[in-house]
Amino acid sequence: MTYCVGILVRDGLVMLADTRTNAGLDNIATFRKLHLYQTEGERAIAVATAGNLAVSQSVLNILTEGLENPETGRIETIHTIPSMFKVAQFVGRAIREVYRIHGQSMEQQAASFDVTMLLGGQVKGGRLRLFMIYPAGNFIEATTDTPYLQIGEHKYGKPILDRAVTSDTALYEALKLGLVSMDSTLRSNLGVGMPIDIAAIRRDDLRFEISRRVDDGDEYFASLRERWSAALRAAHQAIPNPPYDKP
Amino acid sequence: MTYCVGILVRDGLVMLADTRTNAGLDNIATFRKLHLYQTEGERAIAVATAGNLAVSQSVLNILTEGLENPETGRIETIHTIPSMFKVAQFVGRAIREVYRIHGQSMEQQAASFDVTMLLGGQVKGGRLRLFMIYPAGNFIEATTDTPYLQIGEHKYGKPILDRAVTSDTALYEALKLGLVSMDSTLRSNLGVGMPIDIAAIRRDDLRFEISRRVDDGDEYFASLRERWSAALRAAHQAIPNPPYDKP
Repeated sequence: MTYCVGILVRDGLVMLADTRTNAGLDNIATFRKLHLYQTEGERAIAVATAGNLAVSQSVLNILTEGLENPETGRIETIHTIPSMFKVAQFVGRAIREVYRIHGQSMEQQAASFDVTMLLGGQVKGGRLRLFMIYPAGNFIEATTDTPYLQIGEHKYGKPILDRAVTSDTALYEALKLGLVSMDSTLRSNLGVGMPIDIAAIRRDDLRFEISRRVDDGDEYFASLRERWSAALRAAHQAIPNPPYDKP
Repeated sequence: MTYCVGILVRDGLVMLADTRTNAGLDNIATFRKLHLYQTEGERAIAVATAGNLAVSQSVLNILTEGLENPETGRIETIHTIPSMFKVAQFVGRAIREVYRIHGQSMEQQAASFDVTMLLGGQVKGGRLRLFMIYPAGNFIEATTDTPYLQIGEHKYGKPILDRAVTSDTALYEALKLGLVSMDSTLRSNLGVGMPIDIAAIRRDDLRFEISRRVDDGDEYFASLRERWSAALRAAHQAIPNPPYDKP
Protein backbone atom coordinates (compact mmCIF):
# COMPACT_ATOMS: atom_id res chain seq x y z
CA MET A 1 0.00 0.00 0.00
CA THR A 2 0.84 3.65 -0.15
CA TYR A 3 -0.34 6.92 1.25
CA CYS A 4 0.23 10.21 -0.56
CA VAL A 5 -1.49 13.52 0.04
CA GLY A 6 -1.30 16.91 -1.62
CA ILE A 7 -2.70 20.06 -0.03
CA LEU A 8 -3.14 23.22 -2.08
CA VAL A 9 -3.57 26.37 -0.01
CA ARG A 10 -3.47 30.06 -0.81
CA ASP A 11 0.23 30.29 0.11
CA GLY A 12 1.36 27.24 -1.77
CA LEU A 13 1.35 23.48 -2.09
CA VAL A 14 2.62 20.63 0.07
CA MET A 15 2.97 17.02 -1.01
CA LEU A 16 3.78 14.03 1.20
CA ALA A 17 4.34 10.38 0.35
CA ASP A 18 5.40 7.31 2.27
CA THR A 19 7.97 4.93 0.77
CA ARG A 20 6.75 1.42 1.53
CA THR A 21 5.91 -0.99 -1.24
CA ASN A 22 4.80 -4.53 -0.76
CA ALA A 23 4.03 -7.51 -2.92
CA GLY A 24 2.01 -9.55 -0.50
CA LEU A 25 2.80 -9.18 3.18
CA ASP A 26 6.22 -10.82 3.08
CA ASN A 27 7.92 -8.83 0.36
CA ILE A 28 8.34 -5.29 1.63
CA ALA A 29 10.70 -2.71 0.20
CA THR A 30 11.37 1.01 0.19
CA PHE A 31 10.80 2.99 -2.99
CA ARG A 32 10.54 6.71 -3.48
CA LYS A 33 7.01 7.67 -4.52
CA LEU A 34 7.41 11.45 -4.55
CA HIS A 35 9.31 12.75 -7.57
CA LEU A 36 10.31 16.36 -8.08
CA TYR A 37 11.06 18.21 -11.29
CA GLN A 38 12.46 21.70 -10.94
CA THR A 39 13.92 24.35 -13.20
CA GLU A 40 14.32 27.14 -10.67
CA GLY A 41 12.40 30.25 -11.65
CA GLU A 42 10.63 28.42 -14.47
CA ARG A 43 8.85 25.38 -13.01
CA ALA A 44 8.51 23.23 -9.90
CA ILE A 45 6.44 20.08 -10.30
CA ALA A 46 5.89 17.13 -7.96
CA VAL A 47 4.45 13.74 -8.89
CA ALA A 48 3.34 11.21 -6.26
CA THR A 49 2.41 7.69 -7.29
CA ALA A 50 0.27 4.89 -5.88
CA GLY A 51 -0.54 1.47 -7.27
CA ASN A 52 1.43 -1.04 -9.30
CA LEU A 53 5.13 -0.19 -8.99
CA ALA A 54 6.07 -1.48 -12.46
CA VAL A 55 3.40 0.72 -14.01
CA SER A 56 4.33 3.83 -12.05
CA GLN A 57 8.04 3.42 -12.72
CA SER A 58 7.32 3.10 -16.46
CA VAL A 59 5.16 6.22 -16.38
CA LEU A 60 7.87 8.17 -14.53
CA ASN A 61 10.42 7.12 -17.14
CA ILE A 62 8.18 8.40 -19.91
CA LEU A 63 7.73 11.73 -18.10
CA THR A 64 11.45 12.46 -18.44
CA GLU A 65 12.32 10.48 -21.58
CA GLY A 66 9.40 12.05 -23.40
CA LEU A 67 6.42 11.10 -25.50
CA GLU A 68 5.30 12.38 -28.88
CA ASN A 69 2.44 14.83 -28.76
CA PRO A 70 -0.04 13.45 -31.32
CA GLU A 71 -1.18 16.98 -32.24
CA THR A 72 2.20 18.62 -32.79
CA GLY A 73 4.38 15.60 -33.57
CA ARG A 74 6.96 16.93 -31.08
CA ILE A 75 8.54 14.95 -28.23
CA GLU A 76 7.41 16.44 -24.92
CA THR A 77 8.79 15.93 -21.41
CA ILE A 78 7.71 17.10 -17.98
CA HIS A 79 10.55 19.65 -18.19
CA THR A 80 9.24 21.35 -21.34
CA ILE A 81 5.45 21.31 -21.36
CA PRO A 82 4.20 24.90 -21.08
CA SER A 83 1.31 24.62 -18.58
CA MET A 84 0.21 22.48 -15.64
CA PHE A 85 -3.02 21.51 -17.41
CA LYS A 86 -0.99 20.25 -20.36
CA VAL A 87 1.34 18.41 -17.95
CA ALA A 88 -1.72 16.68 -16.46
CA GLN A 89 -2.84 15.67 -19.95
CA PHE A 90 0.70 14.48 -20.66
CA VAL A 91 0.85 12.32 -17.52
CA GLY A 92 -2.52 10.88 -18.53
CA ARG A 93 -1.14 10.06 -22.00
CA ALA A 94 1.94 8.47 -20.41
CA ILE A 95 -0.32 6.23 -18.29
CA ARG A 96 -2.29 5.23 -21.40
CA GLU A 97 0.95 4.54 -23.25
CA VAL A 98 2.04 2.13 -20.49
CA TYR A 99 -1.39 0.53 -20.61
CA ARG A 100 -1.07 0.13 -24.40
CA ILE A 101 2.23 -1.73 -23.95
CA HIS A 102 1.60 -3.77 -20.77
CA GLY A 103 -2.11 -3.56 -20.00
CA GLN A 104 -3.38 -6.59 -21.86
CA SER A 105 -0.57 -8.90 -20.74
CA MET A 106 -1.01 -7.76 -17.16
CA GLU A 107 -4.71 -8.55 -17.31
CA GLN A 108 -3.91 -11.99 -18.74
CA GLN A 109 -1.75 -12.55 -15.66
CA ALA A 110 -4.56 -11.23 -13.41
CA ALA A 111 -2.35 -8.29 -12.41
CA SER A 112 -4.54 -5.23 -12.20
CA PHE A 113 -3.44 -2.10 -14.02
CA ASP A 114 -3.90 0.18 -11.07
CA VAL A 115 -2.00 3.41 -10.86
CA THR A 116 -3.10 6.75 -9.47
CA MET A 117 -1.00 9.87 -9.35
CA LEU A 118 -0.99 13.25 -7.70
CA LEU A 119 0.49 16.00 -9.83
CA GLY A 120 1.14 19.37 -8.24
CA GLY A 121 3.16 22.39 -9.15
CA GLN A 122 3.45 25.54 -11.16
CA VAL A 123 4.89 26.49 -14.54
CA LYS A 124 5.91 30.11 -15.12
CA GLY A 125 3.00 32.16 -16.41
CA GLY A 126 0.42 29.76 -14.99
CA ARG A 127 -1.24 29.02 -11.66
CA LEU A 128 -0.10 26.65 -8.93
CA ARG A 129 -2.35 23.62 -9.35
CA LEU A 130 -2.94 20.15 -7.94
CA PHE A 131 -4.40 17.23 -9.90
CA MET A 132 -5.25 13.59 -9.26
CA ILE A 133 -4.81 11.39 -12.31
CA TYR A 134 -6.66 8.10 -12.69
CA PRO A 135 -5.61 4.82 -14.38
CA ALA A 136 -7.58 5.86 -17.50
CA GLY A 137 -5.46 8.99 -17.74
CA ASN A 138 -8.35 11.31 -16.89
CA PHE A 139 -8.00 13.62 -13.93
CA ILE A 140 -9.63 15.95 -11.40
CA GLU A 141 -8.28 19.11 -9.81
CA ALA A 142 -8.25 20.36 -6.23
CA THR A 143 -10.28 23.52 -5.65
CA THR A 144 -10.79 25.98 -2.80
CA ASP A 145 -13.78 23.87 -1.72
CA THR A 146 -11.69 20.70 -1.55
CA PRO A 147 -8.09 21.80 -1.26
CA TYR A 148 -6.56 18.39 -0.67
CA LEU A 149 -6.31 15.19 -2.69
CA GLN A 150 -5.19 11.77 -1.49
CA ILE A 151 -4.15 8.54 -3.18
CA GLY A 152 -3.54 5.07 -1.78
CA GLU A 153 -4.62 4.19 1.74
CA HIS A 154 -6.51 7.43 2.28
CA LYS A 155 -9.16 6.74 4.88
CA TYR A 156 -7.22 6.71 8.16
CA GLY A 157 -5.75 10.13 7.48
CA LYS A 158 -8.85 11.77 6.08
CA PRO A 159 -10.73 12.82 9.26
CA ILE A 160 -8.06 15.31 10.36
CA LEU A 161 -7.91 16.84 6.88
CA ASP A 162 -11.70 17.03 6.66
CA ARG A 163 -11.74 18.88 9.95
CA ALA A 164 -8.73 21.15 9.76
CA VAL A 165 -7.67 21.97 6.21
CA THR A 166 -9.11 24.87 4.25
CA SER A 167 -7.59 26.82 1.39
CA ASP A 168 -6.80 29.56 3.94
CA THR A 169 -4.56 27.24 5.96
CA ALA A 170 -1.00 28.58 6.05
CA LEU A 171 1.65 26.63 4.13
CA TYR A 172 3.58 25.22 7.10
CA GLU A 173 0.34 24.55 8.95
CA ALA A 174 -0.78 22.52 5.92
CA LEU A 175 2.50 20.60 6.01
CA LYS A 176 2.00 19.92 9.71
CA LEU A 177 -1.56 18.66 9.09
CA GLY A 178 -0.26 16.49 6.28
CA LEU A 179 2.23 14.99 8.73
CA VAL A 180 -0.54 14.37 11.29
CA SER A 181 -2.61 12.70 8.57
CA MET A 182 0.42 10.58 7.60
CA ASP A 183 0.99 9.68 11.25
CA SER A 184 -2.59 8.37 11.62
CA THR A 185 -2.10 6.24 8.52
CA LEU A 186 1.30 4.92 9.63
CA ARG A 187 -0.16 3.84 12.96
CA SER A 188 -3.16 2.02 11.57
CA ASN A 189 -1.83 0.41 8.38
CA LEU A 190 1.33 -1.66 8.13
CA GLY A 191 1.36 -1.20 4.35
CA VAL A 192 2.32 2.45 4.82
CA GLY A 193 5.81 3.00 6.20
CA MET A 194 8.62 5.37 7.04
CA PRO A 195 10.60 7.21 5.80
CA ILE A 196 8.29 9.80 4.26
CA ASP A 197 9.18 12.27 1.55
CA ILE A 198 7.87 15.81 1.73
CA ALA A 199 7.92 18.78 -0.59
CA ALA A 200 6.56 22.31 -0.46
CA ILE A 201 6.26 25.02 -3.08
CA ARG A 202 5.34 28.59 -2.21
CA ARG A 203 2.96 30.12 -4.76
CA ASP A 204 4.77 31.94 -7.59
CA ASP A 205 8.16 30.92 -6.20
CA LEU A 206 8.81 28.36 -8.96
CA ARG A 207 11.12 26.28 -6.80
CA PHE A 208 10.88 23.76 -3.98
CA GLU A 209 11.12 25.55 -0.66
CA ILE A 210 11.15 22.14 1.03
CA SER A 211 12.32 18.88 -0.44
CA ARG A 212 13.40 16.37 2.13
CA ARG A 213 13.10 12.90 3.51
CA VAL A 214 11.75 12.51 7.04
CA ASP A 215 13.07 9.32 8.61
CA ASP A 216 12.77 7.56 11.94
CA GLY A 217 15.44 9.76 13.46
CA ASP A 218 13.68 13.02 12.61
CA GLU A 219 13.25 14.92 15.87
CA TYR A 220 10.42 17.16 14.76
CA PHE A 221 8.32 14.32 13.40
CA ALA A 222 8.93 12.23 16.53
CA SER A 223 7.81 15.15 18.67
CA LEU A 224 4.78 15.80 16.45
CA ARG A 225 3.72 12.15 16.84
CA GLU A 226 4.18 12.28 20.59
CA ARG A 227 2.42 15.62 21.03
CA TRP A 228 -0.46 14.56 18.80
CA SER A 229 -0.95 11.35 20.78
CA ALA A 230 -0.82 13.21 24.06
CA ALA A 231 -3.22 15.87 22.80
CA LEU A 232 -5.71 13.26 21.59
CA ARG A 233 -5.56 11.53 24.94
CA ALA A 234 -6.12 14.83 26.71
CA ALA A 235 -8.89 15.69 24.24
CA HIS A 236 -10.99 12.62 24.85
CA GLN A 237 -10.26 12.64 28.58
CA ALA A 238 -11.61 16.19 28.75
CA ILE A 239 -14.96 15.12 27.32
CA PRO A 240 -17.34 13.99 30.07
CA ASN A 241 -18.60 10.42 29.97
CA PRO A 242 -21.98 9.73 28.34
CA PRO A 243 -24.95 10.28 30.65
CA TYR A 244 -26.80 7.37 29.07
CA ASP A 245 -27.06 5.30 32.23
CA LYS A 246 -29.98 7.48 33.27
CA PRO A 247 -32.88 6.09 31.28
CA MET B 1 -22.19 1.25 3.97
CA THR B 2 -22.24 0.68 7.68
CA TYR B 3 -20.07 1.22 10.69
CA CYS B 4 -20.34 -0.95 13.78
CA VAL B 5 -17.86 -1.30 16.60
CA GLY B 6 -17.72 -3.42 19.71
CA ILE B 7 -15.32 -2.73 22.58
CA LEU B 8 -14.72 -5.34 25.28
CA VAL B 9 -13.11 -3.96 28.42
CA ARG B 10 -12.61 -5.33 31.90
CA ASP B 11 -15.79 -3.66 33.15
CA GLY B 12 -17.99 -4.71 30.28
CA LEU B 13 -18.90 -4.42 26.65
CA VAL B 14 -20.17 -1.57 24.46
CA MET B 15 -21.55 -1.93 20.96
CA LEU B 16 -22.41 0.88 18.54
CA ALA B 17 -23.95 0.79 15.08
CA ASP B 18 -25.13 3.38 12.61
CA THR B 19 -28.44 2.90 10.80
CA ARG B 20 -27.85 3.95 7.20
CA THR B 21 -28.29 1.50 4.37
CA ASN B 22 -27.87 2.31 0.75
CA ALA B 23 -28.33 0.56 -2.56
CA GLY B 24 -26.22 2.78 -4.74
CA LEU B 25 -25.98 6.43 -3.81
CA ASP B 26 -29.58 7.35 -4.51
CA ASN B 27 -31.43 4.78 -2.48
CA ILE B 28 -30.77 5.51 1.15
CA ALA B 29 -32.80 4.22 4.06
CA THR B 30 -32.65 3.74 7.81
CA PHE B 31 -32.48 0.22 9.23
CA ARG B 32 -31.56 -0.94 12.69
CA LYS B 33 -28.29 -2.87 12.62
CA LEU B 34 -27.86 -3.44 16.35
CA HIS B 35 -30.11 -6.15 17.74
CA LEU B 36 -30.41 -7.02 21.41
CA TYR B 37 -31.51 -10.25 23.02
CA GLN B 38 -31.99 -10.21 26.76
CA THR B 39 -33.34 -12.49 29.44
CA GLU B 40 -32.49 -10.44 32.48
CA GLY B 41 -30.22 -12.30 34.88
CA GLU B 42 -29.68 -15.11 32.37
CA ARG B 43 -28.28 -13.59 29.16
CA ALA B 44 -27.65 -10.31 27.36
CA ILE B 45 -26.50 -10.63 23.75
CA ALA B 46 -26.03 -7.99 21.05
CA VAL B 47 -25.65 -8.64 17.32
CA ALA B 48 -24.49 -5.92 14.89
CA THR B 49 -24.64 -6.51 11.16
CA ALA B 50 -22.87 -5.16 8.08
CA GLY B 51 -23.20 -6.09 4.44
CA ASN B 52 -26.10 -7.19 2.30
CA LEU B 53 -29.34 -6.25 4.08
CA ALA B 54 -31.37 -9.17 2.69
CA VAL B 55 -28.75 -11.60 3.97
CA SER B 56 -28.45 -10.03 7.41
CA GLN B 57 -32.23 -9.82 7.86
CA SER B 58 -32.55 -13.50 6.96
CA VAL B 59 -29.82 -14.42 9.43
CA LEU B 60 -31.48 -12.39 12.18
CA ASN B 61 -34.76 -14.17 11.54
CA ILE B 62 -33.07 -17.52 11.88
CA LEU B 63 -31.50 -16.44 15.18
CA THR B 64 -34.91 -16.09 16.77
CA GLU B 65 -36.95 -18.60 14.73
CA GLY B 66 -34.31 -21.23 15.31
CA LEU B 67 -32.22 -23.74 13.42
CA GLU B 68 -31.75 -27.44 14.00
CA ASN B 69 -28.49 -28.36 15.67
CA PRO B 70 -27.09 -31.13 13.44
CA GLU B 71 -25.48 -32.83 16.44
CA THR B 72 -28.44 -32.91 18.82
CA GLY B 73 -31.34 -32.68 16.37
CA ARG B 74 -32.85 -29.96 18.57
CA ILE B 75 -34.08 -26.56 17.38
CA GLU B 76 -31.86 -23.86 18.87
CA THR B 77 -32.41 -20.10 19.12
CA ILE B 78 -30.28 -17.23 20.37
CA HIS B 79 -32.45 -17.25 23.50
CA THR B 80 -31.64 -20.84 24.46
CA ILE B 81 -28.06 -21.68 23.48
CA PRO B 82 -26.04 -22.29 26.64
CA SER B 83 -22.75 -20.45 25.92
CA MET B 84 -21.41 -17.51 23.91
CA PHE B 85 -19.05 -19.75 21.97
CA LYS B 86 -21.98 -21.94 20.94
CA VAL B 87 -23.96 -18.80 20.02
CA ALA B 88 -21.08 -17.74 17.74
CA GLN B 89 -21.12 -21.17 16.10
CA PHE B 90 -24.90 -20.90 15.78
CA VAL B 91 -24.72 -17.47 14.09
CA GLY B 92 -22.12 -18.94 11.73
CA ARG B 93 -24.45 -21.84 10.91
CA ALA B 94 -27.30 -19.37 10.33
CA ILE B 95 -25.14 -17.45 7.84
CA ARG B 96 -24.25 -20.68 6.04
CA GLU B 97 -27.92 -21.65 5.99
CA VAL B 98 -28.81 -18.36 4.24
CA TYR B 99 -25.93 -18.96 1.85
CA ARG B 100 -27.27 -22.44 1.13
CA ILE B 101 -30.68 -21.00 0.20
CA HIS B 102 -29.72 -17.75 -1.57
CA GLY B 103 -25.98 -17.83 -2.22
CA GLN B 104 -25.89 -19.38 -5.65
CA SER B 105 -28.77 -17.31 -7.04
CA MET B 106 -27.22 -14.15 -5.65
CA GLU B 107 -23.93 -14.97 -7.35
CA GLN B 108 -25.79 -15.60 -10.61
CA GLN B 109 -27.16 -12.05 -10.27
CA ALA B 110 -23.67 -10.71 -9.45
CA ALA B 111 -24.88 -9.80 -5.95
CA SER B 112 -22.09 -10.58 -3.54
CA PHE B 113 -22.92 -12.63 -0.46
CA ASP B 114 -21.27 -10.25 1.95
CA VAL B 115 -22.31 -10.20 5.54
CA THR B 116 -20.19 -9.66 8.63
CA MET B 117 -21.46 -9.60 12.17
CA LEU B 118 -20.34 -8.60 15.61
CA LEU B 119 -21.65 -10.78 18.38
CA GLY B 120 -21.13 -9.67 21.95
CA GLY B 121 -22.59 -10.61 25.28
CA GLN B 122 -22.71 -13.01 28.15
CA VAL B 123 -24.71 -16.11 29.06
CA LYS B 124 -25.02 -17.05 32.73
CA GLY B 125 -22.16 -19.26 33.84
CA GLY B 126 -19.90 -18.07 31.03
CA ARG B 127 -17.65 -15.10 30.26
CA LEU B 128 -18.56 -11.82 28.58
CA ARG B 129 -17.20 -12.21 25.05
CA LEU B 130 -17.05 -10.40 21.72
CA PHE B 131 -16.79 -12.11 18.33
CA MET B 132 -16.63 -11.07 14.69
CA ILE B 133 -18.30 -13.54 12.35
CA TYR B 134 -17.35 -13.75 8.66
CA PRO B 135 -19.46 -14.62 5.61
CA ALA B 136 -18.16 -18.20 5.75
CA GLY B 137 -19.55 -18.51 9.28
CA ASN B 138 -16.11 -18.70 10.88
CA PHE B 139 -15.18 -16.16 13.52
CA ILE B 140 -12.53 -14.47 15.62
CA GLU B 141 -12.71 -13.20 19.18
CA ALA B 142 -11.56 -9.94 20.79
CA THR B 143 -8.81 -10.36 23.38
CA THR B 144 -7.09 -8.16 25.92
CA ASP B 145 -4.45 -7.39 23.25
CA THR B 146 -7.07 -6.25 20.74
CA PRO B 147 -10.13 -5.38 22.75
CA TYR B 148 -12.21 -3.92 19.92
CA LEU B 149 -13.65 -5.27 16.68
CA GLN B 150 -15.13 -3.28 13.81
CA ILE B 151 -17.24 -4.16 10.78
CA GLY B 152 -18.19 -2.08 7.74
CA GLU B 153 -16.49 1.22 7.03
CA HIS B 154 -13.90 0.79 9.74
CA LYS B 155 -10.87 2.82 8.69
CA TYR B 156 -11.89 6.40 9.52
CA GLY B 157 -12.71 5.51 13.09
CA LYS B 158 -9.77 3.19 13.73
CA PRO B 159 -6.99 5.67 14.63
CA ILE B 160 -8.67 6.89 17.81
CA LEU B 161 -9.36 3.32 18.93
CA ASP B 162 -5.79 2.25 18.14
CA ARG B 163 -4.53 5.09 20.27
CA ALA B 164 -6.92 5.18 23.18
CA VAL B 165 -8.64 1.87 23.84
CA THR B 166 -7.15 -0.82 26.04
CA SER B 167 -8.85 -3.56 27.98
CA ASP B 168 -8.37 -1.40 31.09
CA THR B 169 -10.47 1.44 29.66
CA ALA B 170 -13.52 2.06 31.86
CA LEU B 171 -16.93 1.11 30.45
CA TYR B 172 -18.29 4.62 29.91
CA GLU B 173 -14.93 5.81 28.64
CA ALA B 174 -15.08 3.00 26.07
CA LEU B 175 -18.55 4.12 25.07
CA LYS B 176 -17.30 7.68 24.69
CA LEU B 177 -14.39 6.52 22.52
CA GLY B 178 -16.79 4.46 20.44
CA LEU B 179 -18.85 7.61 19.90
CA VAL B 180 -15.73 9.58 18.89
CA SER B 181 -14.82 6.79 16.46
CA MET B 182 -18.37 6.87 15.08
CA ASP B 183 -18.20 10.67 14.75
CA SER B 184 -15.02 10.45 12.64
CA THR B 185 -16.72 7.94 10.37
CA LEU B 186 -19.93 9.97 10.09
CA ARG B 187 -17.96 13.04 9.05
CA SER B 188 -15.88 11.34 6.38
CA ASN B 189 -18.29 8.85 4.82
CA LEU B 190 -21.79 9.62 3.60
CA GLY B 191 -22.65 5.92 3.64
CA VAL B 192 -22.66 5.98 7.44
CA GLY B 193 -25.46 7.98 9.00
CA MET B 194 -27.39 8.99 12.08
CA PRO B 195 -29.16 7.92 14.20
CA ILE B 196 -26.83 5.51 15.96
CA ASP B 197 -27.79 2.67 18.24
CA ILE B 198 -25.75 1.97 21.33
CA ALA B 199 -25.72 -0.74 23.96
CA ALA B 200 -23.63 -1.51 27.01
CA ILE B 201 -23.43 -4.55 29.25
CA ARG B 202 -21.57 -4.52 32.54
CA ARG B 203 -19.64 -7.73 33.14
CA ASP B 204 -21.67 -10.37 35.02
CA ASP B 205 -24.73 -8.10 35.08
CA LEU B 206 -26.57 -10.21 32.47
CA ARG B 207 -28.68 -7.27 31.29
CA PHE B 208 -28.29 -4.20 29.10
CA GLU B 209 -27.30 -1.26 31.26
CA ILE B 210 -27.65 0.96 28.17
CA SER B 211 -29.83 0.34 25.18
CA ARG B 212 -30.74 3.48 23.32
CA ARG B 213 -30.87 5.31 20.05
CA VAL B 214 -28.79 8.49 19.74
CA ASP B 215 -30.34 10.82 17.19
CA ASP B 216 -29.59 14.24 15.77
CA GLY B 217 -31.25 15.92 18.72
CA ASP B 218 -29.09 14.17 21.33
CA GLU B 219 -27.45 16.89 23.42
CA TYR B 220 -24.58 14.83 24.73
CA PHE B 221 -23.55 13.54 21.31
CA ALA B 222 -23.80 17.02 19.80
CA SER B 223 -21.57 18.36 22.55
CA LEU B 224 -19.12 15.45 22.18
CA ARG B 225 -18.81 16.21 18.46
CA GLU B 226 -18.27 19.89 19.11
CA ARG B 227 -15.77 19.36 21.91
CA TRP B 228 -13.87 16.78 19.93
CA SER B 229 -13.61 19.11 16.93
CA ALA B 230 -12.49 22.00 19.10
CA ALA B 231 -9.97 19.80 20.91
CA LEU B 232 -8.50 18.53 17.63
CA ARG B 233 -8.17 22.09 16.39
CA ALA B 234 -6.46 23.12 19.61
CA ALA B 235 -4.29 19.99 19.48
CA HIS B 236 -2.83 20.64 16.07
CA GLN B 237 -2.57 24.35 16.68
CA ALA B 238 -0.48 23.65 19.77
CA ILE B 239 2.07 21.70 17.74
CA PRO B 240 4.77 24.02 16.36
CA ASN B 241 5.16 24.25 12.60
CA PRO B 242 7.77 22.06 10.90
CA PRO B 243 11.28 23.52 10.94
CA TYR B 244 11.98 22.08 7.50
CA ASP B 245 12.59 25.40 5.79
CA LYS B 246 16.09 25.36 7.26
CA PRO B 247 18.04 23.05 4.99
